[in-house]
Amino acid sequence: MSDTVKYVLSEADMPKVWYNIMADLPRPMPPVLHPGTGKPVGPADLAPLFPMEIIKQEVATEREIAIPEPVRDIYRQWRPSPLYRARRLERALDTPARIYYKYEGVSPAGSHKPNTAVPQAFYNKQEGVKRITTETGAGQWGSSLAFAGALFGIQVDVYMVKVSYNQKPYRRALMETYGARCVASPSEETQSGRAVLAQNPNSTGSLGIAISEAVEMAAQRDDTKYALGSVLNHVLMHQSIIGLETMKQLEQSGDDPDIIVGCTGGGSNFAGIAFPFLGQQLRGGRTRRIVAVEPAACPSLTRGKYAYDFGDTGHLTPLVKMHTLGSTFVPPGFHAGGLRYHGMAPQVSFLKELGLLEAVAYKQTEVFAAGVMFARAEGILPAPEANHAVKGAIEEALKAKAEGKAKVILFNLCGHGHFDMQAYIDYFGGKLKDLDYDEAELAMALAGLPSVAAE
Amino acid sequence: MSDTVKYVLSEADMPKVWYNIMADLPRPMPPVLHPGTGKPVGPADLAPLFPMEIIKQEVATEREIAIPEPVRDIYRQWRPSPLYRARRLERALDTPARIYYKYEGVSPAGSHKPNTAVPQAFYNKQEGVKRITTETGAGQWGSSLAFAGALFGIQVDVYMVKVSYNQKPYRRALMETYGARCVASPSEETQSGRAVLAQNPNSTGSLGIAISEAVEMAAQRDDTKYALGSVLNHVLMHQSIIGLETMKQLEQSGDDPDIIVGCTGGGSNFAGIAFPFLGQQLRGGRTRRIVAVEPAACPSLTRGKYAYDFGDTGHLTPLVKMHTLGSTFVPPGFHAGGLRYHGMAPQVSFLKELGLLEAVAYKQTEVFAAGVMFARAEGILPAPEANHAVKGAIEEALKAKAEGKAKVILFNLCGHGHFDMQAYIDYFGGKLKDLDYDEAELAMALAGLPSVAAE
Repeated sequence: MSDTVKYVLSEADMPKVWYNIMADLPRPMPPVLHPGTGKPVGPADLAPLFPMEIIKQEVATEREIAIPEPVRDIYRQWRPSPLYRARRLERALDTPARIYYKYEGVSPAGSHKPNTAVPQAFYNKQEGVKRITTETGAGQWGSSLAFAGALFGIQVDVYMVKVSYNQKPYRRALMETYGARCVASPSEETQSGRAVLAQNPNSTGSLGIAISEAVEMAAQRDDTKYALGSVLNHVLMHQSIIGLETMKQLEQSGDDPDIIVGCTGGGSNFAGIAFPFLGQQLRGGRTRRIVAVEPAACPSLTRGKYAYDFGDTGHLTPLVKMHTLGSTFVPPGFHAGGLRYHGMAPQVSFLKELGLLEAVAYKQTEVFAAGVMFARAEGILPAPEANHAVKGAIEEALKAKAEGKAKVILFNLCGHGHFDMQAYIDYFGGKLKDLDYDEAELAMALAGLPSVAAE
Repeated sequence: MSDTVKYVLSEADMPKVWYNIMADLPRPMPPVLHPGTGKPVGPADLAPLFPMEIIKQEVATEREIAIPEPVRDIYRQWRPSPLYRARRLERALDTPARIYYKYEGVSPAGSHKPNTAVPQAFYNKQEGVKRITTETGAGQWGSSLAFAGALFGIQVDVYMVKVSYNQKPYRRALMETYGARCVASPSEETQSGRAVLAQNPNSTGSLGIAISEAVEMAAQRDDTKYALGSVLNHVLMHQSIIGLETMKQLEQSGDDPDIIVGCTGGGSNFAGIAFPFLGQQLRGGRTRRIVAVEPAACPSLTRGKYAYDFGDTGHLTPLVKMHTLGSTFVPPGFHAGGLRYHGMAPQVSFLKELGLLEAVAYKQTEVFAAGVMFARAEGILPAPEANHAVKGAIEEALKAKAEGKAKVILFNLCGHGHFDMQAYIDYFGGKLKDLDYDEAELAMALAGLPSVAAE
């Protein structure tokens, strides 16, 4: 039997709609609140930051939302992405489980992020926006938005967490090659940035600070809007194309997943693969185990509190109810920048509270060991973030082996690691430590949650 | 009309044979000579270095050679690769030309090199070889062979040019993640390496020296063979899958290329896209312009001599007739390591001598300007080597515009540049200079060609 089993879809079979899980939730989600008034925010509150079409999608309750043709046109460059059966990995694990992975590293930016960068750039372009601001940590999101901006002719300004700006010049160069402007955050360009620098001139920044800077710049200018690469409802919905394609591809295989695994930072790639399947279940379909894998050093789903919190450090964003470690929590500097966020997507958090999905946390050395095993078996070198999903899938495959059950396991390989080789060098050099967060700092950050959380 | 026009092939349409241009040459190529005797080499001379199946392919004259099923099985992971119409680039150039590019960056190693790494690893495995030695410059080839070695369970030892070993730790880490062993060349492991170090302890190495080391190690051990990533006939034949797929994809478009462009270092990706079309012409089909683009700083086709020369610096290889700058020629350190070789594939050289293809050389700043324009238009960031093909295609498109002719231009985008971002940083920082080779050094290297060249 063939070792490479790849399930492809024709362009004609590429989904024409995104899936919106809001339509299938058993009860409504807690509203997003205005931090000043404590009242639910309305479209007018968000209008300075987002184009109206994005705001509509953020609150939409229709099950399906059409993917505009200009977005489908760009998706076609790398989509439908392949689904693989990981036969060599199964053999290396000697497991009876059948392991499938969807591979999103085939996009020009190397990850799933363009799935939402492209529609966000499109809707901004359609509404005459000239410039989009955003933040980026490791750089996956910033380079994806830079890519989308180049194709639609929109200027992109990326506030890049300073430690990454200095340590990841290659990611920065990718953004600049696409024509984007990268600014080390905290910067002198914004009040938020200046406030941080006044307190600590040597601040190396955080995602929360960079979000504050990008939001502030967008709010100030009429021709400028803001874009977020994860967390929000519309972002998770754009990523649903991952799961929708996977469903069609699995039909070809004849298999149906018992377990679905994804890594979670803000939650978007995980939601992308899992929500279309979860939606089936919510409409009366089969129950599957859905497993979110997060880093032990930034464990919002497994150790955070489900509470109202700000999305940023400067407290410029609305309040959302989510699993959070507190907006002042700064995780240690482990090698999966895309998973270093204090909060979690409200939709993912809500479904976790409803008991509809599980969460598990792993330490980084075991996560990299899984990634290296995967690379040698399957020939694809995963991003550090994706290694978390690999680890989760391998653990499930080993459980299946112990139980002697031929479980079907599906996971999302959300990106390649070609820009993250320093992490592999550190891993092989024995320099990768199992960093832990500071318990006292976490307690303090949780104690500082906004008071609306108690309501 | 759609901006993204992608031509895909089903797996069933993936070629089942490679194309061997030897069958269609108008007259036989000059033989490969033994450096000691000056007589043509036979299979027995090559047996210490290559498995017998590879040696047979090196001298084969059949037009088609079947691709073994285990090789097709691995090819399927990323093949058939996409062919795109570059509509956004056409618009940016305001050209009536229709530009198509085949994209080989979708392989797990990011370039066309796995097309030959996989069959070479397979034939070695089949003949019981335990270890393969090879050389690598920029690292594209070394990481591709490391990938193939991992999938077939063969140890790969890569002699990596020392300057790259030190400057490109990320490429090295990719090879090591796949399980390969990387050695900085010149090394103390071989006589060739020790001889170089005795003369110059600070030698930063060259591809020619690394080839000598890899060949020497393979010749010494029964369980070890050698693999070369370009230049040789069997390598060029393995790459023919690029052009064969492209032909089927172009049938879908209804277009037929007037001009075919590829970049040339050793010649394999260029031959891969061009030879299947050239073969049609040699069998009485349509004449097309076929353009090889090389770096002005290492201009073997445009400034080299068509003569017998060694493939390596240590003079351990047989003598082949090719366009060469002399085996002692060391090109300046420009940013396209894959094109820094003193010679050229004998087949490409022979066809150039027959007037069946053209060659042109460009300087590196104009080549990078072309690459940045391409990235912003098409969203894919090319490898520095591939930028040469982009530049060649853009020049042809501008000529078509000047002439007001709707020419059809096809080029091979042989790899992505995600491991080459330092070159883009240098380009944007104004640090990229149009390095030139030393005319006196070239004259001396050419004067030192082996005497058989005069025969």
